[in-house]
Amino acid sequence: MACIPLADRATGCYKRPVGSRWTVPEIATPALVVDLEACARNISAMASHAAANGIELRPHAKTHKCPAIATRQLAAGATGITVATLGEAEVFAEHGVGDVFVAYPLWAVGDIGQRLAQLSERVRLSVGADSVAAVEVLRRELDRVTGRSPGQAARLAVRVEVDCGLRRSGAAPADAVHIARAAADAGLVVDGIFTFPGHSYAPGMAATARDDEARALCDGAASLEAGGIPCRVRSGGSTPTAAGTAGDAVNELRPGVYVFNDAQQLALGTCQPDAVALAAIATVVSAPAPGRIVLDAGAKVLGPERPPWAPGHGVLPDRPAARVTGLWEHHAVVDVTGTAKLDLAPLRLGAQVAVVPNHVCTAVNLARVLHVVAGGELVDRWEVAAAGANR
Amino acid sequence: MACIPLADRATGCYKRPVGSRWTVPEIATPALVVDLEACARNISAMASHAAANGIELRPHAKTHKCPAIATRQLAAGATGITVATLGEAEVFAEHGVGDVFVAYPLWAVGDIGQRLAQLSERVRLSVGADSVAAVEVLRRELDRVTGRSPGQAARLAVRVEVDCGLRRSGAAPADAVHIARAAADAGLVVDGIFTFPGHSYAPGMAATARDDEARALCDGAASLEAGGIPCRVRSGGSTPTAAGTAGDAVNELRPGVYVFNDAQQLALGTCQPDAVALAAIATVVSAPAPGRIVLDAGAKVLGPERPPWAPGHGVLPDRPAARVTGLWEHHAVVDVTGTAKLDLAPLRLGAQVAVVPNHVCTAVNLARVLHVVAGGELVDRWEVAAAGANR
Repeated sequence: MACIPLADRATGCYKRPVGSRWTVPEIATPALVVDLEACARNISAMASHAAANGIELRPHAKTHKCPAIATRQLAAGATGITVATLGEAEVFAEHGVGDVFVAYPLWAVGDIGQRLAQLSERVRLSVGADSVAAVEVLRRELDRVTGRSPGQAARLAVRVEVDCGLRRSGAAPADAVHIARAAADAGLVVDGIFTFPGHSYAPGMAATARDDEARALCDGAASLEAGGIPCRVRSGGSTPTAAGTAGDAVNELRPGVYVFNDAQQLALGTCQPDAVALAAIATVVSAPAPGRIVLDAGAKVLGPERPPWAPGHGVLPDRPAARVTGLWEHHAVVDVTGTAKLDLAPLRLGAQVAVVPNHVCTAVNLARVLHVVAGGELVDRWEVAAAGANR
Repeated sequence: MACIPLADRATGCYKRPVGSRWTVPEIATPALVVDLEACARNISAMASHAAANGIELRPHAKTHKCPAIATRQLAAGATGITVATLGEAEVFAEHGVGDVFVAYPLWAVGDIGQRLAQLSERVRLSVGADSVAAVEVLRRELDRVTGRSPGQAARLAVRVEVDCGLRRSGAAPADAVHIARAAADAGLVVDGIFTFPGHSYAPGMAATARDDEARALCDGAASLEAGGIPCRVRSGGSTPTAAGTAGDAVNELRPGVYVFNDAQQLALGTCQPDAVALAAIATVVSAPAPGRIVLDAGAKVLGPERPPWAPGHGVLPDRPAARVTGLWEHHAVVDVTGTAKLDLAPLRLGAQVAVVPNHVCTAVNLARVLHVVAGGELVDRWEVAAAGANR
């Protein structure tokens, strides 16, 4: 049997690794921890970048689902926020956010028309559409729930989604005008167009995705304008492409992940380690064989995503030579054979260890609260108010 | 622009595909749906298999996190339930489950000792351990929170985890006696040993994993008995191995997924399509190009897992030729180029479509409620009471 000395008798935990900004012994593991200062720096840097390039910033709040963070993004100059679901929009509106874009091709059946009508009375609201059919369903539902005359002006704005190469949703840019015209005919405000250059999520693809995004937004805007419909907003953005976007084609950015960053962004080279602002803290619960330890943060805390180009199922920021080689729902297996002998003590049974998840949006959606640390102390707890608001 | 006819004007949805047991128009998508009859058959079949082989059944409740299902499993003859976290144990105890095994190598710092002491007063409780160090922490914490004399008998039982080849947690079987002796010396009940043959989760590996499980449990039991410690329980099991387990080495089974099954089990050949008892229902929200549709059930509903041997990010049970080729948080991209022309109508914009997730445990953990259908009608809603109880 592997013979491993017991953890510190007083706390049951090893002390924080020297220099770690993550581990706080009084937080029970597994838990997500935000480095307040790194998060503030990320918010500020993206706001400055957007302002310097004359681009409006509308951060995607699906990453954090936290009113406490949206408030900080707005205070730093964001125009409004982006969300993926109407449920998220409702949560942020309840918490005082006044300008929300649902960047999703909603199909407005069931209770969606009613919810949109109610929400658009309270906040400046825009939604995505990528087909004439979806606009017609939206028009019909708004007519039904609001009792308005067909085509009477609604407070709701529509942004036409165009595809820039991700091959997910989004119309061909040249077809944007048809959807925009259907929306205008339905009495909806036509706000502009949007796209998501998500093919930036692969090594070396950021520049290509950024070029594709610019071309699609130019073509989409030209389509609207050729049809006599002004295109006020040309919205794009993803965290891998945002910092290199200089304006012109794009006049609004919607990055989300940048507020925390994650192991994917590290692997893509989008950020440096000191810009990572969220980690899971875990306890070493098992050390069953030499070179292998097991942490209590599994896929139900970190999220299970592992793109083939990621170096593991997350990274250990304080022990970069350690590799997370296996992930189950409640177990992360870490190979520490590459770790120098001196660095192994902080990875012994009972030690508290930080793990940066591969995809932070997924990890945050699994949490109910984020523990906020600054200077090695727990300073706040932020409610993940929109956790589970995925409809 | 792809020109796609509008959905049915009255409901905004296409009618259920002929023969589908999943889609129920009044359920707003995305949502998880349980086929009550298939679920009941799965519960009954596993209970019969265990009984016929003289094996006790202790289903893993992390799969469903639903008291409504645990109650049915117990009524069908299960000895008790298995959970992965103390939080899950507490939720099921609150709902009347009286016998719970936390199949996890707990490291009993923080509030864990107190919670274990309290819970063991209310239910028959056992926990996993795979190191002497973890048993010593547990002993110390129980002494501290209960005020008992060192080594005085506790109500809590310990099961020693042994590794059978997964290389996750678990001691070498021959070392089990050291951990068992530490537990006995600490005044804990030594209940036996357990292992998880999780290397069964790969094509063609079930028989190997089952053999490995039998060997590890025999060796572990022999280790205890050679040290004079009776080994009452030899607990194993996973859904891919359970149906082929005939007893002898294993006298308790802990499968979890079998209650619903999923796309992984289909790919492994563990189950047939009619034994799949849970699917996400989704709406076709975008059909931006010929051969491609987009559903509103993404990774925040289905879970993001995709093992390399799975045929996609989930399967469409009613349209098996369709392939889920891409998955983002709120989008599933489905390639329908292989779908016969006649079968394309039910996949048009606005249609309701069922998707079986790759890993059902992950999908259920993301939900707050399961919609229960029988005979094409919504008959119940089950609360996922332990969603998020992952500590």
